[in-house]
Amino acid sequence: MAAAASTLPALSPADALTAMRGAAPLTHCITNYVAMAMAANALLAAGASPAMIHAEEEVADFVPVAAALTINIGTLSAPWAKAMLTAAETANGVGKPWVLDPVAHFATPYRTKVTKDLVALRPTVIRGNASEIITLAGEQGAGKGVDSGDSVDAATSAAMALAEETGAIVAVTGETDLVTNGTRSTLIAGGSDRMPKITAMGCALTGVMGAYAAIAAPFEAAIAACAHFAEAGTQAHQASQGPGSFLPAFMDALEATDQAGVAAVSVRQIG
Amino acid sequence: MAAAASTLPALSPADALTAMRGAAPLTHCITNYVAMAMAANALLAAGASPAMIHAEEEVADFVPVAAALTINIGTLSAPWAKAMLTAAETANGVGKPWVLDPVAHFATPYRTKVTKDLVALRPTVIRGNASEIITLAGEQGAGKGVDSGDSVDAATSAAMALAEETGAIVAVTGETDLVTNGTRSTLIAGGSDRMPKITAMGCALTGVMGAYAAIAAPFEAAIAACAHFAEAGTQAHQASQGPGSFLPAFMDALEATDQAGVAAVSVRQIG
Amino acid sequence: MAAAASTLPALSPADALTAMRGAAPLTHCITNYVAMAMAANALLAAGASPAMIHAEEEVADFVPVAAALTINIGTLSAPWAKAMLTAAETANGVGKPWVLDPVAHFATPYRTKVTKDLVALRPTVIRGNASEIITLAGEQGAGKGVDSGDSVDAATSAAMALAEETGAIVAVTGETDLVTNGTRSTLIAGGSDRMPKITAMGCALTGVMGAYAAIAAPFEAAIAACAHFAEAGTQAHQASQGPGSFLPAFMDALEATDQAGVAAVSVRQIG
Repeated sequence: MAAAASTLPALSPADALTAMRGAAPLTHCITNYVAMAMAANALLAAGASPAMIHAEEEVADFVPVAAALTINIGTLSAPWAKAMLTAAETANGVGKPWVLDPVAHFATPYRTKVTKDLVALRPTVIRGNASEIITLAGEQGAGKGVDSGDSVDAATSAAMALAEETGAIVAVTGETDLVTNGTRSTLIAGGSDRMPKITAMGCALTGVMGAYAAIAAPFEAAIAACAHFAEAGTQAHQASQGPGSFLPAFMDALEATDQAGVAAVSVRQIG
Repeated sequence: MAAAASTLPALSPADALTAMRGAAPLTHCITNYVAMAMAANALLAAGASPAMIHAEEEVADFVPVAAALTINIGTLSAPWAKAMLTAAETANGVGKPWVLDPVAHFATPYRTKVTKDLVALRPTVIRGNASEIITLAGEQGAGKGVDSGDSVDAATSAAMALAEETGAIVAVTGETDLVTNGTRSTLIAGGSDRMPKITAMGCALTGVMGAYAAIAAPFEAAIAACAHFAEAGTQAHQASQGPGSFLPAFMDALEATDQAGVAAVSVRQIG
Repeated sequence: MAAAASTLPALSPADALTAMRGAAPLTHCITNYVAMAMAANALLAAGASPAMIHAEEEVADFVPVAAALTINIGTLSAPWAKAMLTAAETANGVGKPWVLDPVAHFATPYRTKVTKDLVALRPTVIRGNASEIITLAGEQGAGKGVDSGDSVDAATSAAMALAEETGAIVAVTGETDLVTNGTRSTLIAGGSDRMPKITAMGCALTGVMGAYAAIAAPFEAAIAACAHFAEAGTQAHQASQGPGSFLPAFMDALEATDQAGVAAVSVRQIG
């Protein structure tokens, strides 16, 4: 875990929302081509300031300027992998929190290898779907592509083991979200069953989790980001008729979400 | 044509819709930067599972995992071209159907050359607008960029010749869509005049055509994808005021489209 | 400034709108991954024909085919930088207007260097936010990432100096837009405070400015594009509840905007 992150306050989702919007953290995202616009819009709507910068020639210069870093391997290739490793090392060096999103890391040996190298750099937070977290912990999952083939429930012990092994906060997101530090675990409920029908929804959450990790301790930051998305997803469900109308409604809701809305999200400690 | 494709059933659009949603085919898309999110969302809304993976380091490992492959040259560059060729060869080797979308292949010599190499690998289906198909068949078209300068009607003989020459099913999409195997041709009517006003609409159709090609014979798969888009386009037109509101309405409609809706689309054999 | 641009007529925003739609200029955009779909959709909705082509292997062949070129450095990397320089040189050689969008050029030394090389090729128009223009003129700005930290008002003298120094028309866009040739300056008012909450809104404006620069003199082209966006933004504000619903409403409005709407935008000469 990055040095600075350990000194950030353990804020409630409602207080984290206010702190995040007050700081409007400059959030450096190295994310995939599919997610870029979606993640940037989600960060803006949530209250942060996104920056998508990925070139080997500049990531080491930009990481220290940003408040947090997020790395998503969705549409991986060799030059991007190099830049991801450099960015993560730089973040560690300057004590900036960083979030890893190991999209479909099990799908090919190449992807598996790059993910292993990134995990070895000790991300502050790892966020994935159930299939990604289960296989990252070394267990057998049912996923084949980017969509999860497993339930969050089935990923609980794997997530705890992965957190213990890596020192990262692990967030498994799905119909209910789980955040764990290996010993303490929290479930966040809410959202909409339309969310998995919209591409890059998880990648966008990774971006927003980065913004929260800039202003709160990692465990609470991950919970706050999940609560913000859960509340916005619940609101957007009411305002939409399908996955197409859900997306603009969700961005409206990310902006409209207030302290009371986030505070009403079911956040429950287990185990 | 890929080996496996020849053994898939010749389904009606309505039966293909049900079969496609039942299988939720993992559809591997190597597509352009503009289209990625749009194509992924269209696949999800239609009922399939998209995966955008393009690196030379991993395409050969992922093609066998996926149910079908689509290749779109929209924002071409050298490393992508190499991966496209590798992916197409792999698809042929493991008998997976693949769809080629030769975006503006006539616009530059580089693009023309890469397209020629891809066509030589015998795609299962080739989908393009009228200008793309006319020029791919060696005739003179009126297109300059990605927007068609010719009508689908004017492309009929070129499409048939191209199908005959390449062994591919050829789909020409526009105000009315044409699908041909060189001897048999079918026209699919419907949709909305707002569709050409939305970028990557054709690229998204290519993606969805890949999903259908995973569960139905290529000729019928191409017709089913066109019918699904035509019906969704007709629905979305009613629910929108311009190209901006058309897009979310279209995604809602791709999901909402049912057997009755697709069965009502005008699908007419000619010649 | 490109040769041809100097012979284009000095049209009012309303006349430029009609001329641009009549010509539907093929607008070659080398833009960032975040902005691509957004810029292409904005160009289509506004009435132009976009083409996103960036490979070193083909830009020199495509620039002469297009009516105008736009270059945006948002998600810069080495192969793209090379293609940008080649494309700009080609545009100069064949007398095509080109618009430079120096996104966050101050954020890293790499970005600063590439921008300097592009500016040395004498763009027809430079469009940026206040922080980008202030720092490009060699003054001290308050921006850190892609969002502006300065007001357009504070950028007036820097914009005039930059226009004088480079020979480009300089457009600073924000709550009010400023267009200057170094001696004459014009303010364009309107739009919506939701516009900075949508990623790539400025990049999309750069694209549309390219389309206008294909049919009007650069100073008037920049004003016309700002007026088109201001009017569409005002319309979209009324029709939206947040940044999510603003985006489709804005695309609808770009298409719906007519001569009367654009003529009603406040366009005021200063100094």
